[in-house]
Amino acid sequence: MTTLYVVGIGPGGREHLTGKALDVIRACPVIVGYTPYIELIRDLLDGKTVLTSGMTQEVERCQQAMAQVKAGHDTCLISSGDPGLYGMAGVALEVAEGIDVEIVPGVSAMFSAAAEVGAPLMHDCCTISLSDRLTPFAVIEQRLRHAAQADFVITLYNPKSRGRPDHLEYAVEILRQYKSPYTPVALVKRAGRPDAEYQLTTLANIAYEWVDMQTVVIIGNSQTYVKDGRMITPRGYRLA
Amino acid sequence: MTTLYVVGIGPGGREHLTGKALDVIRACPVIVGYTPYIELIRDLLDGKTVLTSGMTQEVERCQQAMAQVKAGHDTCLISSGDPGLYGMAGVALEVAEGIDVEIVPGVSAMFSAAAEVGAPLMHDCCTISLSDRLTPFAVIEQRLRHAAQADFVITLYNPKSRGRPDHLEYAVEILRQYKSPYTPVALVKRAGRPDAEYQLTTLANIAYEWVDMQTVVIIGNSQTYVKDGRMITPRGYRLA
Repeated sequence: MTTLYVVGIGPGGREHLTGKALDVIRACPVIVGYTPYIELIRDLLDGKTVLTSGMTQEVERCQQAMAQVKAGHDTCLISSGDPGLYGMAGVALEVAEGIDVEIVPGVSAMFSAAAEVGAPLMHDCCTISLSDRLTPFAVIEQRLRHAAQADFVITLYNPKSRGRPDHLEYAVEILRQYKSPYTPVALVKRAGRPDAEYQLTTLANIAYEWVDMQTVVIIGNSQTYVKDGRMITPRGYRLA
Repeated sequence: MTTLYVVGIGPGGREHLTGKALDVIRACPVIVGYTPYIELIRDLLDGKTVLTSGMTQEVERCQQAMAQVKAGHDTCLISSGDPGLYGMAGVALEVAEGIDVEIVPGVSAMFSAAAEVGAPLMHDCCTISLSDRLTPFAVIEQRLRHAAQADFVITLYNPKSRGRPDHLEYAVEILRQYKSPYTPVALVKRAGRPDAEYQLTTLANIAYEWVDMQTVVIIGNSQTYVKDGRMITPRGYRLA
């Protein structure tokens, strides 16, 4: 049966692609995706029909991919990281009608960012996107408050956007009502790529000017510490 | 430099292993891990020194691996899913002294489980382990309350254990104080393996007897719905 594969390519470095993702990309004659992600796998696409589109065009991209499947072509819809977290899997299934859709998981940005700096997640954790394009900021703010009180390790996606460059400062101000200023924080850019960069800092000392739209921000829980330059969250709580 | 690689092998099916994980496993002469995970990659281990150990022996396993690195052997410490979430990365870095440690990320169980049932995560989400072996149950209970109030998609790990077979019932009882009984729930076993199985149900209708220790439980947020047998969380909130 002709299939729409929604494929997570991981953080971008070829080495972090799964065997399944690689096989599916190789097998499909049509590849659809956001231009910068397509560039990351460009060398795999010789002889294929490649349909690229810009940011915020998720729905159009899915419709384009669906039309290709209906025309009889197995099609890959490319997502960075894992397609099921802030990726293309949801939109694809929302839009899909009468076609076969398979989700191919990948290494999410939260895990490639974590691997760069040590083991900051490890225990109960949450992810919050600071983008208010589709979610009211009041909902995001409530999530930050509950996440802090739950003592989750918190991963923030989309910490900055053109519309609101101070989202991260505002989020940290909320978190600081509940969390120690000494809480370890990792800022990670281009995780899982050869040019990855990161800073380890604390909740009180974030270099906001260094953070860009693609930076992943990981904020420790009450037990997180730094040892030999690695950020570590222990598996549990030391029982007194 | 001789290195300890902490390697995430993903959900278990060979196809979900990343290229990097495969390369590192092939290159290292010594492989250390929990017996059932070693079995998943047994065909890659011919001619290698393989050191297996049982459940709850995480610290001993890391010390064993570290001793091998100090003896001059590149060593893989195997973790299922991603090593940085409820995996071996944290313990390895806590125990490591004077050796080089590299974390190799993998596809986490939450994402392979999500891919089996659709796109249930998609938006802000959290993971909570119901195991109280290292975390007081009062902390877990507070996390459940905050996670529900934050309207996170909630993934539960370790929903049952020998010591407390009714953990999941109790957790759902807490969540139902805040969430609709009609909230979609996915129960997923052996995600990402050929014999994967799942049930789609609701918060009020979970088949507790079907859940075992390794089942991943995904509980939707207020926007999650089921369409054509797939569980979908939209990317955002419909703005009124």
